[in-house]
Amino acid sequence: MSVRVNRQWRLAARPAGEAAASDFQWVEEKVRPIEDGEFLVRNVYLSLDPSNRVWMNAAPSYLPAVEIGEVMRGFALGVVEESRHDGFAPGDIVQGLLGWQEYAISAGAGVSRVARHPVPLHAHLGLLGHIGLTAYFGLLDVGKPVSGETLVVSAAGGAVGSLAGQIGKIKGCRVVGIAGSDDKCSWVTGELGFDAAINYRKGSVVRGLMRHCPSGVDVYFDNVGGDTLDAVLRFINLKARIVLCGMVAQYNTATALPGPSYLANAINKRARLEGFIVTDYHDRAQEAVDDLVRWNAQGKIKYRIDIVDGLDRAPEALLRLFRGEHRGKLVVKISDEPSR
Amino acid sequence: MSVRVNRQWRLAARPAGEAAASDFQWVEEKVRPIEDGEFLVRNVYLSLDPSNRVWMNAAPSYLPAVEIGEVMRGFALGVVEESRHDGFAPGDIVQGLLGWQEYAISAGAGVSRVARHPVPLHAHLGLLGHIGLTAYFGLLDVGKPVSGETLVVSAAGGAVGSLAGQIGKIKGCRVVGIAGSDDKCSWVTGELGFDAAINYRKGSVVRGLMRHCPSGVDVYFDNVGGDTLDAVLRFINLKARIVLCGMVAQYNTATALPGPSYLANAINKRARLEGFIVTDYHDRAQEAVDDLVRWNAQGKIKYRIDIVDGLDRAPEALLRLFRGEHRGKLVVKISDEPSR
Repeated sequence: MSVRVNRQWRLAARPAGEAAASDFQWVEEKVRPIEDGEFLVRNVYLSLDPSNRVWMNAAPSYLPAVEIGEVMRGFALGVVEESRHDGFAPGDIVQGLLGWQEYAISAGAGVSRVARHPVPLHAHLGLLGHIGLTAYFGLLDVGKPVSGETLVVSAAGGAVGSLAGQIGKIKGCRVVGIAGSDDKCSWVTGELGFDAAINYRKGSVVRGLMRHCPSGVDVYFDNVGGDTLDAVLRFINLKARIVLCGMVAQYNTATALPGPSYLANAINKRARLEGFIVTDYHDRAQEAVDDLVRWNAQGKIKYRIDIVDGLDRAPEALLRLFRGEHRGKLVVKISDEPSR
Repeated sequence: MSVRVNRQWRLAARPAGEAAASDFQWVEEKVRPIEDGEFLVRNVYLSLDPSNRVWMNAAPSYLPAVEIGEVMRGFALGVVEESRHDGFAPGDIVQGLLGWQEYAISAGAGVSRVARHPVPLHAHLGLLGHIGLTAYFGLLDVGKPVSGETLVVSAAGGAVGSLAGQIGKIKGCRVVGIAGSDDKCSWVTGELGFDAAINYRKGSVVRGLMRHCPSGVDVYFDNVGGDTLDAVLRFINLKARIVLCGMVAQYNTATALPGPSYLANAINKRARLEGFIVTDYHDRAQEAVDDLVRWNAQGKIKYRIDIVDGLDRAPEALLRLFRGEHRGKLVVKISDEPSR
């Protein structure tokens, strides 16, 4: 058994606002031998997500905070290299919270084997991973859009938003995206088939909604919270549904931002705001995967992936994520894909 | 046919903050003869509700704004004195948006006949009226409490809150009230059987919740919004339900107040916030009335009514409502009850 070196990013400090490279520490250590019931994974792709920033805070979210000195938590996809676990064999492709590191030793908790589909391997971190499942179940199970309704999606140029909007189109909705650049806006209206898009950096979201949602808003897939949520609340229709999927607007703030002033309109409109975490849908993943693979093969759903090469660049990539500089799902390539 | 004089309060001005007596104009006019398809109601009791203040604003709520010069909108109970309408006969007790006036002429829209139950007539504006139905359907249909769960009710000493809490007790919940005086707190814990109460004017609501909700909050029946909603959001359990029933905290402000900072916790906890207006439950009123009459007869549900004598005192009574000086359901007596 060769001695492997595991390079890792550990949490060095809790950021007050935006995360900085200095919040992470680069550590190299030898991989210890696995024990009975364990297996060793070589990480191939690491997913970067807004939630990564949330986990760096001292306050627990839907998961406990990452402790200082702990390997940074992250969702990754890898290949099993050694196993003394009955459920996993060398060569298996697996995914789970394997961390910002080259090698992970696991006893299987929260790790699942990846069934191969006619998509690139990294699509399992995007279209067929938690990203695709978030868009799918968040929109369909919580938002419950009906054909002919108006769906608004924020962070529409992002990994989840771009998929949620396309699923809305498949379900017959008028889909209006909100994004932070003209480039993203023309991507979602041009290539992805959204009916309209609003560049929130260039003008008033309220005016954009007034113009592009003449029949009001029935479903809002909210990835950002803050002022955008507040603006949409002014346009909701009777029995509107707001999927609270993320609040990127406040992930980088040490203190909580004020919530939406127009929440009272949810009473007038008998609207529902509902929080949603994709991990609750683990058991139903196959439903989503079947639909997403089919829609992708039919050309009805497209996705972009932005691959950053090298684990050493993970902290800088996380900053890009929050600056909105990435294009589609942001992934760090840690090591080579296994041959199929 | 004798000539009747109708005395009315009309909306004279839109208040910027708290309503003032000068926002209303006292008008006397002769009652015109009714036409075919109409009936004349002598109003007996007028219900004063927080929504009355909302209707005075220029912005529409779930109903259009009351126009300047229009009779002030209000829910009232009265007796039919004359009728040329097939559905209503003299002597019928009716209720609906009959307005702040002594007489109303109606063609029947939104007016319903009141079935007599073994309760005082004015209970139809409280326990068996929109108050009781709001507490009943808001809690049971939107909040869906389960025995053993913790229910928090704000404005617990108010008409709706005091009933919602008692219904929660009937359903086996631990019930914690939030109210604005020691007197109200001891009423809800003493006479009404709440498990605990927090006086928000005397200390921190957050500390109160920490102490009285050791297992977190499963259902929050929210009558006030604002800081109280924000405080409760910090304590919600997984899959918590928040019934958005009212936002008294901001009814008197010209500009919208910031919403809850802790809304992001609704994501972590997969919580649902849902707006609710009792008028949607018109068709199911009987379900509530049957239960409420039975519970009241069994001594399981109590209510207080605060009767202000004379329509001329309606504006001043509305101010009392917002100062929290009333005790239980606030009603203005306009004329004598008909003999049964």
